[in-house]
Amino acid sequence: MFDPIPTPAYELKQKVQAVIDQKTKPIGALGRLEECALQIAMMQATTRPTIASPTWLVFAADHGISRRGVSPYPSEVTAQMVANFLAGGAAINVFARLHNFDLKVVDAGVAAPLPEHPELVRRAVAPGTRDFLEQAAMDESQRDQALTRGRDLVRDLLAQGVNTFGFGEMGIGNSSSAAMLMHFLTGLDLEVCVGRGTGLTDEGLARKTAILQEAAARCFDDMEPLEVLRQYGGFEIAMMVGAMLAAAAGRGLIVVDGFIASAALLTAAKMEPCILSYCLFAHCSQERGHRAMLDYLRAKPLLQLDMRLGEGTGAAVALPLIRSAVAFYQDMASFDGAGVSQAGES
Amino acid sequence: MFDPIPTPAYELKQKVQAVIDQKTKPIGALGRLEECALQIAMMQATTRPTIASPTWLVFAADHGISRRGVSPYPSEVTAQMVANFLAGGAAINVFARLHNFDLKVVDAGVAAPLPEHPELVRRAVAPGTRDFLEQAAMDESQRDQALTRGRDLVRDLLAQGVNTFGFGEMGIGNSSSAAMLMHFLTGLDLEVCVGRGTGLTDEGLARKTAILQEAAARCFDDMEPLEVLRQYGGFEIAMMVGAMLAAAAGRGLIVVDGFIASAALLTAAKMEPCILSYCLFAHCSQERGHRAMLDYLRAKPLLQLDMRLGEGTGAAVALPLIRSAVAFYQDMASFDGAGVSQAGES
Repeated sequence: MFDPIPTPAYELKQKVQAVIDQKTKPIGALGRLEECALQIAMMQATTRPTIASPTWLVFAADHGISRRGVSPYPSEVTAQMVANFLAGGAAINVFARLHNFDLKVVDAGVAAPLPEHPELVRRAVAPGTRDFLEQAAMDESQRDQALTRGRDLVRDLLAQGVNTFGFGEMGIGNSSSAAMLMHFLTGLDLEVCVGRGTGLTDEGLARKTAILQEAAARCFDDMEPLEVLRQYGGFEIAMMVGAMLAAAAGRGLIVVDGFIASAALLTAAKMEPCILSYCLFAHCSQERGHRAMLDYLRAKPLLQLDMRLGEGTGAAVALPLIRSAVAFYQDMASFDGAGVSQAGES
Repeated sequence: MFDPIPTPAYELKQKVQAVIDQKTKPIGALGRLEECALQIAMMQATTRPTIASPTWLVFAADHGISRRGVSPYPSEVTAQMVANFLAGGAAINVFARLHNFDLKVVDAGVAAPLPEHPELVRRAVAPGTRDFLEQAAMDESQRDQALTRGRDLVRDLLAQGVNTFGFGEMGIGNSSSAAMLMHFLTGLDLEVCVGRGTGLTDEGLARKTAILQEAAARCFDDMEPLEVLRQYGGFEIAMMVGAMLAAAAGRGLIVVDGFIASAALLTAAKMEPCILSYCLFAHCSQERGHRAMLDYLRAKPLLQLDMRLGEGTGAAVALPLIRSAVAFYQDMASFDGAGVSQAGES
């Protein structure tokens, strides 16, 4: 179903590092930005890395589990927020305009009717998943449809010259889905994986945890990643998994957003660990499980701003940092060129 | 010498918070960005905050102490880097072009001759400070010249409509000066305040610490901030102090950079504590003393990217985050306007 993920060009490491170390600054003084520049160069297999036509795909879908009251928001909000995305009024729209990236809104499986809109990318698998408290969220063909539709969207963008991707999501109930994926794929206790989502009270969190514990009892612990995805995933999450695998296969940079997007990445990484070489982790979300998930992935997020919105907004506000990394590499003068003395010279 | 710093419009807090809470997102879901928007609104005393014509002033000067070998770089690098700034080749130039802010390079007291350049702002007090191991770095009239020149530069920019300022610096030896200011103004042990600067070895750090301990023994512990500045400051640091005080007096936002800029702010805050209401702390530098200095100031930096370059680069890469904060506040749809249900509604 997926193309193989190429190995980054590790053989360029010394050459790229030498370029970085010749820039007019003390060795290492740009910290994480230097690491980003090096990683992007290796993933793009070039000594001249670029950020080309960065594009955010925001996948929206509904979740059968949401009728169990795992979120303070009703399921209808998924469609309402998609309408808000299409009207340009959501946080991700604001950041797309401000930080100059392209934004595509994908219906991966929203339950309520969506407005006619020329910019809505209609890829719905079904009007929401089934309630995973009772049965698998999706069947195999639905899961595979979601995976391949996500893959194909990214393949088209790669063919158009996009080399940098943000993946966002909207789906009432999807922090429950992400918590289940995390629990089954990492082996961590469910309590570590379940958080307040969009803002549950203590009581709501206890109820959500109890429901998810009951749902977890339905399955064995040692399922394959694709089976975990089928049992407890969402269509937006499955589409993200396919999109992420396709991005890495095409040497695209994946800017990883928060808890839900990281759960999709975790699923992809369990299938293809080398996808991690193509990821920059934008931020650590305030959602409880995210820090533990990042630790499990050995990921160092660029930002920690107590954000917990989804939509790809964490990835969006990290994009200027990533552009800063590539820009210093591309545009700064070198010691020789600028006639600046290096350390230890007199 | 300075205008008083006005109190932020705390009376707007509830009104601004209500605007934030009506945006189409869960309450608090934009985390630190929401705090930034609220703070900027209150400092600007408006419910419609803006980031107008952000301008970075990079002050350069030399330090008499540098002849003691407290830096791995020779003093000549200060002038060489100023030439690099004027040629557009330094990191701060790259970030100014990328993130679209204005950059002014100020000669506050560089020792070596500087190139003729129409964009160099010549405000040199003297060709470098005196060696503070032996005597006060500057005399009172030099210090006051530096303060007023910094103040006047900012006053002019405020009059031109600038409301957001980054302050950067270049000066071989100035992490020694900043460490001394920190030590005398916070009472923290000198060992906590002294770091590797542009990249000293363990041996170099030990030598730097020993020299600064000897220099500290020249003075009593309980000096006034302006006397500490005179004894151990630099012209670029003193000019920043004046510039920061003027910015806050004009309700300007100060984006605080790394260790050296924070030492200038610390000095200003010891004179006028309410300046802190006008500050956003961009990052925690890798320079050893910076975390402790931020803790002393009760500051929560936006970024921690292991940067330690100076020039205002930490503040520069934080600017897009600050713009993100103001942009969501200005441009996001509200629940009513977008027809999105709020939490708890059915």
